[in-house]
Amino acid sequence: MTTEAQALDGVRERVLEAACELFANRGINSTGVDLVSEVAGVSKRSLYQRFPSKDHLIAAYLPRATDRFLDGLVPAEDSGLSAAGRILEVFAATQRKSHQPDFRGCPVLNATAEIPDVGHPMRGIAVSYKDRLQGYFRAQAEAAGAADPELLAEQLAMVFDGAMSYGSVRDQPLPDSVHATARTLLAAQGVELPQ
Amino acid sequence: MTTEAQALDGVRERVLEAACELFANRGINSTGVDLVSEVAGVSKRSLYQRFPSKDHLIAAYLPRATDRFLDGLVPAEDSGLSAAGRILEVFAATQRKSHQPDFRGCPVLNATAEIPDVGHPMRGIAVSYKDRLQGYFRAQAEAAGAADPELLAEQLAMVFDGAMSYGSVRDQPLPDSVHATARTLLAAQGVELPQ
Repeated sequence: MTTEAQALDGVRERVLEAACELFANRGINSTGVDLVSEVAGVSKRSLYQRFPSKDHLIAAYLPRATDRFLDGLVPAEDSGLSAAGRILEVFAATQRKSHQPDFRGCPVLNATAEIPDVGHPMRGIAVSYKDRLQGYFRAQAEAAGAADPELLAEQLAMVFDGAMSYGSVRDQPLPDSVHATARTLLAAQGVELPQ
Repeated sequence: MTTEAQALDGVRERVLEAACELFANRGINSTGVDLVSEVAGVSKRSLYQRFPSKDHLIAAYLPRATDRFLDGLVPAEDSGLSAAGRILEVFAATQRKSHQPDFRGCPVLNATAEIPDVGHPMRGIAVSYKDRLQGYFRAQAEAAGAADPELLAEQLAMVFDGAMSYGSVRDQPLPDSVHATARTLLAAQGVELPQ
């Protein structure tokens, strides 16, 4: 990589980091591009060279925010957990994460609530992230021998979203019932539960 | 009521109706007070006499939007349904409602996602509405003989929120699994289910 290309990436990086912080803490609609450029320490001209519009910036921000959000929620491949254990760990980790003071819920849900326009470029990204988590649940549900892995995955995805919304309305850490609900749904499908 | 008071109420009414329409379709943050006054056909001076700030308007809008949203979801007292049937009807009605073209999900979840500030005056209203639905679930769960009505109510409230969020990310009517999940959670607590 040439020095010029590195400098270009550095600007892009600073802009995206500033967007991650500002969009999460102030909301997407309440954050102007002016403020992003100011916090990033980047001229508006440089910013618009990388992100021709705020919509481009939102579409670039969302995968980064969501990757960070899912990081630590989905257990590592070598975690040694059973398939059922992996599913339950997602919910246990979500509960733990909700105790962090900077917890702001799911960036995908927050972005779609802020941007009702279903034609917005970030919509496809939002759906693909939700599908990714549901796909993970489905694969683990199959491996765990669930009676109807498709249904179970949909149920778990819904409880996950519900827990996020539940927590952000109340501005409280998630209750233990999140984990208990996942256990109940697994058990109802004949999945053997870890202790 | 004097004619003057009626006129005052008429203005308030038009402003709140315009806010209901605009906040739902465009989002709260993307809707300026100027546009609300324009659509309501009310001068900005008259608007600010009733709602000194946009935050006042949001706080007045939310109960109205939420009452409408819950209307038709919670079955009537004389519905003839059992307690378990009432709980299931909330989820069945939610699924039906999600097929309407103007369905925009839960106004409380949308408002809290748009306004991250936990000190905002609408926050208390948001929590009280969520508590009201959860309280309804708890009362019915008790009447239906659930093993742990408190837990069941929390689970149902979470599935309800999850269904709303699930549907609004995907911009699709809710899947049948919403109702199936409620049935599974009731059955797991020993509640006898209607056919």
